[in-house]
Amino acid sequence: MKICRINLENKVAYARIEDSQLAILGSFSTLAEISTAEPTTKRVEISAVKFVPPVEPSKIVCVGRNYSAHAAELGNEVPKQPLLFLKAPSSVITNGEIIQIPSQSHQVEHEGELAVIIGKRCKNLGESDDVSPFILGYTCLNDVTARDLQRSDVQFARAKSFDTFCPIGAFLETELDVSDLRVQTFVNGEVRQDGRTSEMVFPVPFLIRYISNQMTLNAGDIIATGTPSGVSKMVDGDIVEVRLEGLEPLINPVFEMG
Amino acid sequence: MKICRINLENKVAYARIEDSQLAILGSFSTLAEISTAEPTTKRVEISAVKFVPPVEPSKIVCVGRNYSAHAAELGNEVPKQPLLFLKAPSSVITNGEIIQIPSQSHQVEHEGELAVIIGKRCKNLGESDDVSPFILGYTCLNDVTARDLQRSDVQFARAKSFDTFCPIGAFLETELDVSDLRVQTFVNGEVRQDGRTSEMVFPVPFLIRYISNQMTLNAGDIIATGTPSGVSKMVDGDIVEVRLEGLEPLINPVFEMG
Repeated sequence: MKICRINLENKVAYARIEDSQLAILGSFSTLAEISTAEPTTKRVEISAVKFVPPVEPSKIVCVGRNYSAHAAELGNEVPKQPLLFLKAPSSVITNGEIIQIPSQSHQVEHEGELAVIIGKRCKNLGESDDVSPFILGYTCLNDVTARDLQRSDVQFARAKSFDTFCPIGAFLETELDVSDLRVQTFVNGEVRQDGRTSEMVFPVPFLIRYISNQMTLNAGDIIATGTPSGVSKMVDGDIVEVRLEGLEPLINPVFEMG
Repeated sequence: MKICRINLENKVAYARIEDSQLAILGSFSTLAEISTAEPTTKRVEISAVKFVPPVEPSKIVCVGRNYSAHAAELGNEVPKQPLLFLKAPSSVITNGEIIQIPSQSHQVEHEGELAVIIGKRCKNLGESDDVSPFILGYTCLNDVTARDLQRSDVQFARAKSFDTFCPIGAFLETELDVSDLRVQTFVNGEVRQDGRTSEMVFPVPFLIRYISNQMTLNAGDIIATGTPSGVSKMVDGDIVEVRLEGLEPLINPVFEMG
């Protein structure tokens, strides 16, 4: 099921795709119940709506160096356990919105990846715990990074938290086997990153269990699962696309500010 | 004015101190208006209420190495511009709540500091812009840090984001000159950190302007302004107190988990 959030008559509403239209969802009490929320009779055309990011995360937990070829291209070792960092939620935009290159950076790069959206609060999951009840769905994410500032700051937070630096797909896919999906990033139609989620050093269930033992994950939180090799600079006027098999593409134009 | 948030008849309400009691505040539409919200006639005794953290930040932006003596004690240089990192909002607790030492760390340390609470969305402030309209108030904050994991991860995010690792005071002080306040941390009544906010490498107005140029600050967001020297390990059974002149103290017991 493909779920999205749209602006409808100046209110934000959840909807899902039905017969190539958007069916507005009825009420639900927690985000975890959204997959079972009954659609109302109201239908709108996909082309006629303004999408907003499908969730408002209380945090975005990212996993660094989770594809060995990407770790190598930046001169890093693969970590012994997941390397975590945080992106500011104020950086979130969605499909079609503009990635703004800030004046502080001369090297803003794309990092296309699979995002896991948490559906239910989870904490201290054990090795044998099933993670699926805690997953709301999946979407594409571009972990936009000011590579020059990432190097000079050492801490990743600022280089990855400028406004518009976290494009996420407009649709969450609630049913998907993400263990071996092709993940690609294109700039102006030319492929730059091309990997498979099966190449992750730490796969999705491991990541969710691991992170839940470091900090409580809340409904709506995003886990960015790392990027394959091929990261490259984006410049003014570029169109960047993150594509994962089974997910709606994430396409954003790039503009330089000022 | 000292403002807090409490659990009142199973709802969360804002209140302020009046004549040594808490006066429940009437409605207000945005956090920035809380200082001018009229109190209702309802009064409760301070000793009778359960406090909740005074804000729910969408992000916690922290400033590293903002006191030169603290930078030196950890073997670091003072940065040329503010060194930013993020703590997960899920780590927030308030006065009186327990700091839990996770099993992953053998060196959890206190970092007492001044926290600035943002009252109004701000972005791209200029050098001559007045920051005061964007400040809701101030409170004490303990930037609890698993020092061993901070060293091994290099990225600070995980070491500083365990649940309970961000105690903040129960009260916001809306009127305070924070340019030269004594900031102290005590463990079991013994002073460990003792500095003055005038020793900050980058003072509060500079920090707010700087951060607003890296990412949009939203109402309720917290800026942790850095810690003076004297950080030290906390162990099971300790009582840690962060005290800043003019602010209510932040006192938390420490427990080891498991």
